[in-house]
Amino acid sequence: MAPVETAAPAESNAGAPPPPLLPDWSVEPWFNTPRPLGLADFRGRVVMLHSFQMLCPGCVAQALPQAQTVQDELAGDALAVVGLHTVFEHHDAMGPPALAAFIHEYRLTFPIGVDRPQKDSPLPETMSRYGLRGTPSLLLVDRHGRLRHHHFGRLADLHLGVLLSRLIAEDPNQNEPDQNGPRRIDPLSPQTAKSSDSVPGSAGCDTGVCPL
Amino acid sequence: MAPVETAAPAESNAGAPPPPLLPDWSVEPWFNTPRPLGLADFRGRVVMLHSFQMLCPGCVAQALPQAQTVQDELAGDALAVVGLHTVFEHHDAMGPPALAAFIHEYRLTFPIGVDRPQKDSPLPETMSRYGLRGTPSLLLVDRHGRLRHHHFGRLADLHLGVLLSRLIAEDPNQNEPDQNGPRRIDPLSPQTAKSSDSVPGSAGCDTGVCPL
Amino acid sequence: MAPVETAAPAESNAGAPPPPLLPDWSVEPWFNTPRPLGLADFRGRVVMLHSFQMLCPGCVAQALPQAQTVQDELAGDALAVVGLHTVFEHHDAMGPPALAAFIHEYRLTFPIGVDRPQKDSPLPETMSRYGLRGTPSLLLVDRHGRLRHHHFGRLADLHLGVLLSRLIAEDPNQNEPDQNGPRRIDPLSPQTAKSSDSVPGSAGCDTGVCPL
Amino acid sequence: MAPVETAAPAESNAGAPPPPLLPDWSVEPWFNTPRPLGLADFRGRVVMLHSFQMLCPGCVAQALPQAQTVQDELAGDALAVVGLHTVFEHHDAMGPPALAAFIHEYRLTFPIGVDRPQKDSPLPETMSRYGLRGTPSLLLVDRHGRLRHHHFGRLADLHLGVLLSRLIAEDPNQNEPDQNGPRRIDPLSPQTAKSSDSVPGSAGCDTGVCPL
Repeated sequence: MAPVETAAPAESNAGAPPPPLLPDWSVEPWFNTPRPLGLADFRGRVVMLHSFQMLCPGCVAQALPQAQTVQDELAGDALAVVGLHTVFEHHDAMGPPALAAFIHEYRLTFPIGVDRPQKDSPLPETMSRYGLRGTPSLLLVDRHGRLRHHHFGRLADLHLGVLLSRLIAEDPNQNEPDQNGPRRIDPLSPQTAKSSDSVPGSAGCDTGVCPL
Repeated sequence: MAPVETAAPAESNAGAPPPPLLPDWSVEPWFNTPRPLGLADFRGRVVMLHSFQMLCPGCVAQALPQAQTVQDELAGDALAVVGLHTVFEHHDAMGPPALAAFIHEYRLTFPIGVDRPQKDSPLPETMSRYGLRGTPSLLLVDRHGRLRHHHFGRLADLHLGVLLSRLIAEDPNQNEPDQNGPRRIDPLSPQTAKSSDSVPGSAGCDTGVCPL
Repeated sequence: MAPVETAAPAESNAGAPPPPLLPDWSVEPWFNTPRPLGLADFRGRVVMLHSFQMLCPGCVAQALPQAQTVQDELAGDALAVVGLHTVFEHHDAMGPPALAAFIHEYRLTFPIGVDRPQKDSPLPETMSRYGLRGTPSLLLVDRHGRLRHHHFGRLADLHLGVLLSRLIAEDPNQNEPDQNGPRRIDPLSPQTAKSSDSVPGSAGCDTGVCPL
Repeated sequence: MAPVETAAPAESNAGAPPPPLLPDWSVEPWFNTPRPLGLADFRGRVVMLHSFQMLCPGCVAQALPQAQTVQDELAGDALAVVGLHTVFEHHDAMGPPALAAFIHEYRLTFPIGVDRPQKDSPLPETMSRYGLRGTPSLLLVDRHGRLRHHHFGRLADLHLGVLLSRLIAEDPNQNEPDQNGPRRIDPLSPQTAKSSDSVPGSAGCDTGVCPL
């Protein structure tokens, strides 16, 4: 299967072909899920697919905490976070038992699958299939299973929020016009809007903010 | 005029009244703009209105850098950033000349207006009118001039990105259905997608990420 | 008086002249002290003299929090922190009333003096006298009043700790040999060694550290 | 051998017994050194012994970068940094091959030894011998091989700098009075005093600091 070499444009021009469907991953085993998962299981939801290696410093310092924050604060009926352990170096040090310890120590709670090794390549199967350039990589898949963004390296929280929200806001039924409107998440539900709620009513700037 | 006490819900229920129009601010003087600005000047664009004080530690450490990042990376035809200097304490230390020096030293480039002092209150006019609870405060106004979010305190970049994108994605002409679809920003234009582009082709994880 | 152009070497070679005495500052008014202070008031203690401007971003973000941490955790009989507000630009925005508001909002508790303006120069008196190159600047004065280090710009906490400790460890009476040994601070007294004490006894790495 | 249960006090009272000699570690294999090392190899130098696990989040995020900074900026004739991989959990995931990959990816350059596993305990030998409470742990050993500080958890850079400098400043020959004075490091040699040197001569606060 040919690699998906570049991300589909976020906004199709009129007359342009639609973004391609992302082919399914090839994963075994899974963590944080009672049963194997395929892309088709997420149809109707936006999927944030996060490719990492447990010994990649940039993954550990930035991308994995970001993925866990999205899982904790945004994931739900409209959005799912999925991890993909794409080991392409130090294979002996990053097998499934090591990954299990890593997931435990770093308190990762989203489903994580191990990209299947290939016999004749250091790259695992899905990594080749998707044309990933390294770790961390981020793939955003829309409600119809189409690849919409492909990013290698760090991505600022502000931009990630913009991209996720844009995909979530799209009408999942634009191809099936006889249904209702999009479901949407509300990231500022009471349990997440902590800064606002924790500000005491008294004057002074002790917490950094200055209430009346 | 009665204060706008709470933010309008992000998603109106069917049959519920629409969110209120935000009344205009009362500002003098302005910085970073050749002429005075009113809310009506931004009709058709989402407005991120950032209320701050130059001696508020949380504004300086977090909210103002965040506003400047939005200005640098997201603002454009679809989104505008506007600062509002809402001085309600230490009035002598935060007059317009002091603010001018502050804007210069902190390299702020978005339009900033000074909320007009009131004779009989330590609170300036717009702060009272909008019912702000302190600084930093963030008000998000949609393309129709309606207040959609009102947040006091720090707001995570991820959530801000979600909120901005959601408002930007709304059809600005939903009340005038005979026009084209929404204009959208692309935050991942080449000049902003730095992390991806700066990764060298060689192997190794020297920059934190691990390229192939 | 000629400026003190370079910092004295930390370690004098045998036969080399001793580091120069730092001339006194010229300051008015003072904050956080009931009476004016001169360098002679600190003889016998190491002095960390921190030159800053309230509208200098690097001072606000890094150097002033560092100075306050030293004040909170290391200052005492052996070490004193003194701030020097050396305004050389935006004079109208950084007068004593503005500084008072700034000190209040940023919760600074060490003594801070305003470097005296000069009629014929934008630089204040002490800044000229000491040959400071800008803000933030750090001057370390030993127990005998001699300038031992002069640093312009940010200084890493690790290095600052080394420098302070080295000066504190010096025998204050090496010129008056008939007295007792040096007094020393203990930065790891119970109230400061928080990380160690706060670790729960149970297993797991929930706080980032991994107890048995 | 009985564990060294508590750190020796930094300052011995007159008449009190001297701090105990730290017993040697039991380590195999070593990384980043051409031959095995014992504590006796470091006599005359202060040793910063850093106990960690490669899957301990607090070690990876804070303690190991701190140890590498000390190695890069302070280590030399007066001070040595030594790592001790004290695996007490997830033994299968943190064997020597995995550690080798970790050391490579995180660019650690100081000598690191693997604490020898024990047959009848999950704790390795040296960890038991020293009475370590978990990871990260920091042991500071003076020039005579005596344990002077034992810290479990994170330690602020400022405090670490103070502690290291104090031990370095001690006369290594106080028991052998017929020799010369202490050797000392200079952490502000030209190659480390980067912030000061990188400040351009022109006006403006672009880098955060405000030069004249």
